[in-house]
Amino acid sequence: MNCNTPSDIVFSFQGFSQRGGATDHHSDGWGIAFFEEQTARVFIDSSPSIDSALADFVRQTPIQSLNIIAHVRKATLGDVSLKNCHPFVREMWGQHWVFAHNGTLLDYAPPYKGIYYPVGTTDSERAFCAILEALREHFPNARPDSPPSLTDIDLALQSIVRNTAQFGKFNFCLSNGQSLWAYCSTDLYYALRQHPFSTAQLTDIDVSIDFTQRGKQGDCAAIIATLPLTNDEHWHQMATGELIRFKHGTPQSVAMIA
Amino acid sequence: MNCNTPSDIVFSFQGFSQRGGATDHHSDGWGIAFFEEQTARVFIDSSPSIDSALADFVRQTPIQSLNIIAHVRKATLGDVSLKNCHPFVREMWGQHWVFAHNGTLLDYAPPYKGIYYPVGTTDSERAFCAILEALREHFPNARPDSPPSLTDIDLALQSIVRNTAQFGKFNFCLSNGQSLWAYCSTDLYYALRQHPFSTAQLTDIDVSIDFTQRGKQGDCAAIIATLPLTNDEHWHQMATGELIRFKHGTPQSVAMIA
Repeated sequence: MNCNTPSDIVFSFQGFSQRGGATDHHSDGWGIAFFEEQTARVFIDSSPSIDSALADFVRQTPIQSLNIIAHVRKATLGDVSLKNCHPFVREMWGQHWVFAHNGTLLDYAPPYKGIYYPVGTTDSERAFCAILEALREHFPNARPDSPPSLTDIDLALQSIVRNTAQFGKFNFCLSNGQSLWAYCSTDLYYALRQHPFSTAQLTDIDVSIDFTQRGKQGDCAAIIATLPLTNDEHWHQMATGELIRFKHGTPQSVAMIA
Repeated sequence: MNCNTPSDIVFSFQGFSQRGGATDHHSDGWGIAFFEEQTARVFIDSSPSIDSALADFVRQTPIQSLNIIAHVRKATLGDVSLKNCHPFVREMWGQHWVFAHNGTLLDYAPPYKGIYYPVGTTDSERAFCAILEALREHFPNARPDSPPSLTDIDLALQSIVRNTAQFGKFNFCLSNGQSLWAYCSTDLYYALRQHPFSTAQLTDIDVSIDFTQRGKQGDCAAIIATLPLTNDEHWHQMATGELIRFKHGTPQSVAMIA
């Protein structure tokens, strides 16, 4: 979720977390990261999100954020354990960077450059480390007080993702707390919630919400997911190869990666 | 806390978290990191630990770990916000490293080397980044599959800490999930809990525990804190300049840093 005003994800996470063992078989751990400016607060657990005490805490606690990334895991490469739970986080240029991946990369073994190494054993964390190393190579003079512009990062990510996506299914969300990049390899949808809000009915659980009395003029939020989370909102299906950067709750840049 | 068998910290954290606004004035945020092998799971919150919903979760949830580092903050340098909550975490050599600091370093501005930058604005996170950069410089060929030995890290830390401690009060705990290093600048105590366990009475809150029916032969745990957490255990007072590495719940190496 990417928003222009701090919002909580309690409603959407109620439905999303059902996919960790109830409405889908992504029951091999879960995680969620909430940004507060450049700082990410990450909750991960290797138990299924439908019966994790920590997931209950997240379902019940409205944590306000502009950028939130959540993940439920179906283990393909890497065993079921805390070290392999997404989202992953690293610091670069004085910002936290957070990454979650849906899919599997096969025979993927980029050389290590010496800065970022995976802590776990997933293809996903390896790809995340490689993305960050490549961004550092693109911007060797970047510093906390002189970071690359978001549009320059857009361009760099296009070439990095082009190289990685050929190894398999590579749907991902990436954020540095300023923007959220979503890449569609096979399955990614987004819905834009804008004031005045309406009602919404979750797909995965019989819960609906009346947003009509919430928020103020100008509020908007983008919700991005591999499958639509609600029945009665318009979900845009992203195309294969589409990389979108969201900021202020709306798409800011769209690129097609051949 | 450093243990030789996975243990939870529910009892000790009940007392410790009182220092975040009840029995002490360290009410400017708090945090706790639990290692599971080389992976740290960190919970941080900028509200006082005595009335944080997340602290309630931690007080009620027994999370088993060999290495746990907790912190309650009294803001000196850096505002009260999530980015400034300890413990801080970074990845190095495919392991998470976790750091919490008690004290203040004045006029402390080591040059940045380009790998680790602070996300927040504390002297503490800056020191942590400098420690990791210095460890990388000491061990330029270290990799996840060929890390330095713990005794080599002991020696490297001695010279690094010697340089940093001259800037002020620098009590800290540092862990990579294998060992826990504790450095006493002014105030640090540790207690060793070994099987057969006895009872213990917290200092900060009227709670006692009967450990006598717990654990098995050989179990031991070291609890390290700036002030003793219990009334009826023996707390060893560390000397100024003492750096101890704990592993398997006992001190493994002790160095005096002039």
